[in-house]
Amino acid sequence: MLHVIGLGLGDATDITVKGLEIIRMSDRVYLESYTSILSIDLKDLERFYGCSILEADRELVENNADEILPKDEKENVAFLVVGDPFGATTHSDLILRARAKNIKVKVIHNCSILTAIGCSGLQLYRFGETVSIPYWSIDWQPNSFYDKIISNRRRDLHTLCLLDIKIKEPTIESISKKKREYMPTRFMSVSEAVTQLLKIMEEKMEENKEEMVLLNKSSLAIGLARIGWDNQRIVACSLEKMASTDLGPPLHSLIIPATNLHPLESEFMSLYMYE
Amino acid sequence: MLHVIGLGLGDATDITVKGLEIIRMSDRVYLESYTSILSIDLKDLERFYGCSILEADRELVENNADEILPKDEKENVAFLVVGDPFGATTHSDLILRARAKNIKVKVIHNCSILTAIGCSGLQLYRFGETVSIPYWSIDWQPNSFYDKIISNRRRDLHTLCLLDIKIKEPTIESISKKKREYMPTRFMSVSEAVTQLLKIMEEKMEENKEEMVLLNKSSLAIGLARIGWDNQRIVACSLEKMASTDLGPPLHSLIIPATNLHPLESEFMSLYMYE
Repeated sequence: MLHVIGLGLGDATDITVKGLEIIRMSDRVYLESYTSILSIDLKDLERFYGCSILEADRELVENNADEILPKDEKENVAFLVVGDPFGATTHSDLILRARAKNIKVKVIHNCSILTAIGCSGLQLYRFGETVSIPYWSIDWQPNSFYDKIISNRRRDLHTLCLLDIKIKEPTIESISKKKREYMPTRFMSVSEAVTQLLKIMEEKMEENKEEMVLLNKSSLAIGLARIGWDNQRIVACSLEKMASTDLGPPLHSLIIPATNLHPLESEFMSLYMYE
Repeated sequence: MLHVIGLGLGDATDITVKGLEIIRMSDRVYLESYTSILSIDLKDLERFYGCSILEADRELVENNADEILPKDEKENVAFLVVGDPFGATTHSDLILRARAKNIKVKVIHNCSILTAIGCSGLQLYRFGETVSIPYWSIDWQPNSFYDKIISNRRRDLHTLCLLDIKIKEPTIESISKKKREYMPTRFMSVSEAVTQLLKIMEEKMEENKEEMVLLNKSSLAIGLARIGWDNQRIVACSLEKMASTDLGPPLHSLIIPATNLHPLESEFMSLYMYE
């Protein structure tokens, strides 16, 4: 059987009791290591689980997934994912491959950044579509996330912005070559994300005055760092101020709240307000 | 300290290792018992945790929350919530009350139905605003959830519909009386929810032909029952067919997917398709 197990967001003890029991009886254990990170490293996980763990990078999961799948009916494989197993598209694909081979699949859920952001005090049912903010390069500066934020604000909804992560990503030049070369590991900070957003807003400002009323540099933003870790940090301030605010080590996420907050939400915000 | 601990969706072993350690060292343990249910009862939880658990109904949490909070700095209180602690507004309120009294609060996250629905194969970042479908009475038949579903479909987004739960809710007649009387416990089924939705669609049909193209009785719906339980069930079929489909015991949830599915999403759907 293939067991796809969420690890939660913090350290080794954020796994569920059910998930831990399955890991301990599995024949092979993989850790998906390219869409997120925990506060501890592989060695600490191995010590806590009492077994050795194989690292599964993007190349293995997306191009050689069959290597991961159980060889026969008796073999149990645990595939560990930071957060909840369904946070990233790539794991749906692994599950479909298993099902196509008639391999049984069991999913052990855990918390995801998509709901853990509830600790900001913003009501989860008031979030609209989630957006991703990618690192810009000189010739690729997509801005569709801006339109989605505006669309959510028009309907008085919050927007969660997931920030880019680059772990072991091949350089564009090396993709067609035999020998892969990798970009340096990078995690987008809240300040980098807001700086890109402000740049788009500046360009749009001239075309569309109405949107400027909806979202401008004085609008409230919430920066979240290391959610679920012991040293998590939440800061609320204007977009302008957020662009120069350092929230420390990764992972970071950003929320652009709705224009109108409920009284309970405002009360929470005052806990995080950064003057 | 007040520890607000998510229990996940299934049974006793869905708690995190971290959460279990805290329960076992707490002086008092409460289970919030009115916004969701687990697959097991209080006695089984007590046996697994090795401690006794106090039930916290709506009246205690919303009107007598101070009873729950730690009496002094040394006391540890664990407040257990099915799913993730931030699924319901009522728990934000408890946390704010604690903070106002300078009581430290620690949150232990867990999975929530809001992300566990990823097991349907629909991509979580393609969900728009979540809606709640309430039980109708003779003189109260709100239909705002319909407008939100339409608004999500216009932007090609999925909609998760959370279905009404009535646990120990006072009858309207008894609210002003000293002696409270309670409504019978009810959990809305997917078939009941879809029946209400079809009724609204029929009324709207005459006013608005364009909306009928966006959503009609042939549109795809996904019924989810007991997500995270050993006997979870997922069924995909037309709204018309779903109205007469019995998914068994509670809890149920409903998804109205976007009109266009991604290839990976369609492949998943075929696993659940009910002819």
